[in-house]
Amino acid sequence: MYEKKDKKPANSNAELTSLSDLGEFGLIDRLTRNVKYYHPETLKGIGDDAAVIDAGEKVILLSTDLLVEGIHFDLTYMPFKHLGYKAAVVNISDIAAMNGVPKQMTVSLAVSSRFSAEALDELYAGFIMACDKYKVDLVGGDTSSNVKGLMISVSIIGEAKKEEVVYRSGARTGDLLCVTGDLGSAYIGLLILEREKSVFQVDPSMQPELSGFDYQVGRQLKPEARTDIRNLLLGIGVKPTAMIDISDGLASEILHICKQSGVGCKLFEGKIPMDEHTRELAKEYKIIPSVAALSGGEDYELLFTVKQDDYEKIKEIAEISIIGHMIPSSEGKQMITPDGKSIPITAQGWDGMKAR
Amino acid sequence: MYEKKDKKPANSNAELTSLSDLGEFGLIDRLTRNVKYYHPETLKGIGDDAAVIDAGEKVILLSTDLLVEGIHFDLTYMPFKHLGYKAAVVNISDIAAMNGVPKQMTVSLAVSSRFSAEALDELYAGFIMACDKYKVDLVGGDTSSNVKGLMISVSIIGEAKKEEVVYRSGARTGDLLCVTGDLGSAYIGLLILEREKSVFQVDPSMQPELSGFDYQVGRQLKPEARTDIRNLLLGIGVKPTAMIDISDGLASEILHICKQSGVGCKLFEGKIPMDEHTRELAKEYKIIPSVAALSGGEDYELLFTVKQDDYEKIKEIAEISIIGHMIPSSEGKQMITPDGKSIPITAQGWDGMKAR
Repeated sequence: MYEKKDKKPANSNAELTSLSDLGEFGLIDRLTRNVKYYHPETLKGIGDDAAVIDAGEKVILLSTDLLVEGIHFDLTYMPFKHLGYKAAVVNISDIAAMNGVPKQMTVSLAVSSRFSAEALDELYAGFIMACDKYKVDLVGGDTSSNVKGLMISVSIIGEAKKEEVVYRSGARTGDLLCVTGDLGSAYIGLLILEREKSVFQVDPSMQPELSGFDYQVGRQLKPEARTDIRNLLLGIGVKPTAMIDISDGLASEILHICKQSGVGCKLFEGKIPMDEHTRELAKEYKIIPSVAALSGGEDYELLFTVKQDDYEKIKEIAEISIIGHMIPSSEGKQMITPDGKSIPITAQGWDGMKAR
Repeated sequence: MYEKKDKKPANSNAELTSLSDLGEFGLIDRLTRNVKYYHPETLKGIGDDAAVIDAGEKVILLSTDLLVEGIHFDLTYMPFKHLGYKAAVVNISDIAAMNGVPKQMTVSLAVSSRFSAEALDELYAGFIMACDKYKVDLVGGDTSSNVKGLMISVSIIGEAKKEEVVYRSGARTGDLLCVTGDLGSAYIGLLILEREKSVFQVDPSMQPELSGFDYQVGRQLKPEARTDIRNLLLGIGVKPTAMIDISDGLASEILHICKQSGVGCKLFEGKIPMDEHTRELAKEYKIIPSVAALSGGEDYELLFTVKQDDYEKIKEIAEISIIGHMIPSSEGKQMITPDGKSIPITAQGWDGMKAR
């Protein structure tokens, strides 16, 4: 049996630390401070989009993500099939963020008795659709009842050659900061869905008014993972120096790269790629458009840095925007507004430890 | 977007199938019936203790298990440190059941705001203690808030040489059926803990009366994984033909091996290894002792089959009991009682889809 802890009982409320005070990343830092690694094959443990395990000829990438009803998704407007698809994509995106190829996935579900087998059929149809699109083998999982609600835990294995893997920690001063696709639409899509939900709650006879918002709603309900970027960059002979996927919002992800690479950055607000309609909608919602990109999250685009020498190769690629560059850590993490002001980048991204 | 399904809305209650009607294995069979595999490296997907992935020099084993508060554990009597330890061990046991070596683990938590950081420190201390004992690297995970309760999802990677892996499907007629350690004590431990909980609920001033039940309570609260068996069998030159760990109860696990190997079995009730005190306690609880072993579960011992030729090597090993042998499928799955009666083996093991 374990040794007894000191006198203080674990359920005494004296001086206990609430989880929301720590936030997700603070909690992870705290819980994992005593973790040791025993195996030299563990090339990277906690602290990147995936763990990296040496398997001889290649490396194995391992990542896992939880989706909890009432925290990460709302079944009022999230169809089961989309939910399964999204739960798979979120994990596939982590492998893309390591510059790897997704290969195998496990899916675990905890479900309360309010769900029918038919609902779970739909959920699985979404998983299987994503697995088909991204060529991932669904190799196992666990299924349990739950006291309340639906909880989905997905783990994914990817692979890459050792020299292909891109970590969060490789950005250097002078590197260009790049992002794929456009940002902020998933967040605006969420706002639209939340608005229609409120309308529906007041008057259940109302039909949701989603026409004209297909792009934003689609980005929220059925995101895609940028597994295409690996080959695109391979094709032009560019290897990112650091990479992360944008799940929590651009600001938060930039700060992760800065922290783990030990550099600062200069981000140009005017260069952040956004859909024009999304910009307009943001204004309707009284949100500065760039804030939807900086703090919104769930776009699952890739944020990465490349050497300055790669500028000519990168600048022609329509799918990639250069949005800034890395500077010495002592110069901070700055966003330069179109009128030339410098403001510090702070993370206000989505924090899984704080309920929405 | 997805195609629309046929007219029947997913939330219509007409003809919906409840999850408890299917049971855990029925549900898994149903949900995974359309799963396809794209990668030749996926040597084994759904249907064993772990998936098996070809990684060149060796194979990677991947398994995952959920533990849900109110379903798999009760924090009234389960200390957090034990819970973390057990959640790790349950997964390590799956790798042992494939005859592999556990290597890396991810831990995901969904926690409601009723939990403090100090409680999760204890939970992690349990994970780290198990990782230290079994030499497993804790390489990542995910942390989220939860609407209610605590949910733990662990995924584990193990490794083995391809020729070392033991599947559930390799048992043949004539093979000997073997089990490690002893069975049923974890279940009796659970009954003792539940009894003390009821006493406490009636009169909270009562202290739990657990002295004298250390073995049974320890088996329930702090099980161990039989990672020693791999080396033990290697040492005597025996490779099991089929193997599974006993998480749901001996009967259920025997039926898994029979089903996947396409054989029947003859189990001798009198040969089932049980602790003497556990037998006595079972009788006090008005339970036939063998039923605690057959249906109780959570002992995390290994059940395996070996070729008849290995009898001489196996019979001397104190840690292993020979409890029967495999027969043609047409002869059924029989248990022979001490007075020579044959009764069919049916699974009444723990079913995660049915609340306790």
